[in-house]
Amino acid sequence: MFFKISKKSKKSRARIGVIKTPHGAIQTPAFVPVGTQATVKGITIAQLKDIGAESLLCNTYHLYLRPSDVLIKKMGGLHKFMNWDGPIFTDSGGFQAFSLGYAIEHKVGKIASIFPGRVGPDSSKSKKDSGEQEHTAHYRDDKLAKITENGVEFRSHLDGSKHFFTPEKSMEIQRNLGADIIFAFDECTSPLHDYVYTKKSMERTHRWAVRCLEAHEGQQSNVKGQMLFGIVQGGAYKDLREASAKFIGAMDFPGFGIGGSLGKSKQDMYKVLNWSIPLLPENKPKHLLGIGSPEDIRECVKRGIDTFDCVMPTRLGRNGAALLNKGTLNIKSGRYLNDKNPIGKRCDCYTCENYSRSYVSHLFKANEMLGPILTTIHNLRFMENLMRQVREEIKKGQL
Amino acid sequence: MFFKISKKSKKSRARIGVIKTPHGAIQTPAFVPVGTQATVKGITIAQLKDIGAESLLCNTYHLYLRPSDVLIKKMGGLHKFMNWDGPIFTDSGGFQAFSLGYAIEHKVGKIASIFPGRVGPDSSKSKKDSGEQEHTAHYRDDKLAKITENGVEFRSHLDGSKHFFTPEKSMEIQRNLGADIIFAFDECTSPLHDYVYTKKSMERTHRWAVRCLEAHEGQQSNVKGQMLFGIVQGGAYKDLREASAKFIGAMDFPGFGIGGSLGKSKQDMYKVLNWSIPLLPENKPKHLLGIGSPEDIRECVKRGIDTFDCVMPTRLGRNGAALLNKGTLNIKSGRYLNDKNPIGKRCDCYTCENYSRSYVSHLFKANEMLGPILTTIHNLRFMENLMRQVREEIKKGQL
Repeated sequence: MFFKISKKSKKSRARIGVIKTPHGAIQTPAFVPVGTQATVKGITIAQLKDIGAESLLCNTYHLYLRPSDVLIKKMGGLHKFMNWDGPIFTDSGGFQAFSLGYAIEHKVGKIASIFPGRVGPDSSKSKKDSGEQEHTAHYRDDKLAKITENGVEFRSHLDGSKHFFTPEKSMEIQRNLGADIIFAFDECTSPLHDYVYTKKSMERTHRWAVRCLEAHEGQQSNVKGQMLFGIVQGGAYKDLREASAKFIGAMDFPGFGIGGSLGKSKQDMYKVLNWSIPLLPENKPKHLLGIGSPEDIRECVKRGIDTFDCVMPTRLGRNGAALLNKGTLNIKSGRYLNDKNPIGKRCDCYTCENYSRSYVSHLFKANEMLGPILTTIHNLRFMENLMRQVREEIKKGQL
Repeated sequence: MFFKISKKSKKSRARIGVIKTPHGAIQTPAFVPVGTQATVKGITIAQLKDIGAESLLCNTYHLYLRPSDVLIKKMGGLHKFMNWDGPIFTDSGGFQAFSLGYAIEHKVGKIASIFPGRVGPDSSKSKKDSGEQEHTAHYRDDKLAKITENGVEFRSHLDGSKHFFTPEKSMEIQRNLGADIIFAFDECTSPLHDYVYTKKSMERTHRWAVRCLEAHEGQQSNVKGQMLFGIVQGGAYKDLREASAKFIGAMDFPGFGIGGSLGKSKQDMYKVLNWSIPLLPENKPKHLLGIGSPEDIRECVKRGIDTFDCVMPTRLGRNGAALLNKGTLNIKSGRYLNDKNPIGKRCDCYTCENYSRSYVSHLFKANEMLGPILTTIHNLRFMENLMRQVREEIKKGQL
């Protein structure tokens, strides 16, 4: 068995498990750090191992554009290229191909209103009026991404060059990269899309899932043990999510991803999970794509999520926001220059065991690279410890 | 004995030795990495130890301005603040106080013509006409730095605020920082200065050396075992260098620094060492301030230099220039994207043992922090290995 559940909660859908891959095991529930361009920003592989991370997720769209999946294959595949011998996830490339330009234009994330800048491109505000949405359609169809039944034509955010992704192309790129767990090519709709569009898009995503599975099975021999996960879409609409979970869940995927849009609030996101997860095969792993702030973790684990990936801990770290049990600490604030304590008073990360808030605060004020590095290390270790704690709570029947 | 020489070359002034400090020993000849703002840019202390560095040098001027020596003292001193338990050098602050604005204005380093951008602020060209020099005098005296017998008034490069350094102030700051080896407050003249100014400045530096020694002896009890090195000045003029070496060498310093200007070519620099070093006490350590590119090392060691500090390996590394035995490799070049080899084919650094040229090249092209980090690690390890090789050559009587 590729996924083994060792304990199920009696209070919720939470469970402890192990995902076994050709590059080692992942204890679940797990947080998967994001290494978009084949590097967790600022962190060496040695540091990542020291943090305790068991797996990471790279972005297919970015690696396809630069340095290219073909080059990475030539260099021996992603594991060898970036020198990470543990499990790797790659996403399908769909989210960025569809939304990078779109989301930059409209400053939205996967959840429209309350998580500005959480996922997708750096953004700080959301706009929800229908004028924006029309404008959106204009950009999506005519300027940045052109969707047909066959796939999506999009422009590179790097140089504006034109590219075309199809389900088959996504499988080919992900085969070249050679990750252990890959995702079916999907359209990640925006919270700004209406019911009609979301339904149409979901149905296309379903047809693409069939094509992905076929393409992947045809390639199976190329990357030993590579697992293709299907993705459930359907926006924040109950009947669509149910339809998608049933359709995708009935297919021969060894695991599943829950894709965005996840609505306009955390409550919406929890509802999406409540609708989708019970309709998916219980004993297969479920990944929540692009979500994973500390306050979400327990709520999503209780609803049956096994793995999370999110840029939040690394992005916050680079910007000087250190994760603590009670929110974040803005280490750039002048008040910490005089603080001899470590960032987290009981934290066991390299940063907290070796440096004071005063020092890290100085590094940020002096624009030193080591500031973002040390805060990233802290935040990733915080997530590791949180997941360990969550697994412990499930073990003890507390979650 | 604070400095013990274990072997002297019969062919040159080269020698192997050990400098013992309250924070451990330094095998000499040694390269001392620069951590200007209490951090070797992009590198953790764990990585620096892994590289094999035994000591580092921080800049008094920068730390005085930000976060301030007073704050660092409050945090337990520089060793504790930056979590480096090995030997630390601090410079006097003089070089930057006098020259930061000046050198930025005139784009010169310590050696005027051939080492653009090597030391001091980032610069790319040198200007040597006398019009520039007059202009210089204007800026030095009226705008950026005002020199009197008592000290120098200068403006912060950060916010333009006015500050005043005296020999006593430099000793006080360096006492607050608490490094193991500190330097007397000196004026580092520019290669653009004429004989008359250089002589006048050197004589003032001598009087300041007397004041530093007095101030430091009065403070001796404050930082246990802190060693004050005197600095030889005199520009590229033979009689001035000889006079300075005799004057400073006769004082009760446990070691010496050779300060710039070092002339207009490498040949000038070697001459400066030929003139100065034989007139300094043989059995005391000699540090060459701000110099240490690979091609200089052996020539300077042969002339009696024991320790070097230089930003070159770290600065080049951040800019994608990797040190090799035969010059530098520009890892940003597209040709290396297809190169499976490590940067240095026989290099034992963390970078070369774990990553290909292809990967590091990709990181630079993708503007990833890890590119500068990995190349910095390589360059510092290159310097460590070079110094080990130099010590070996002295041992075998080859240098």
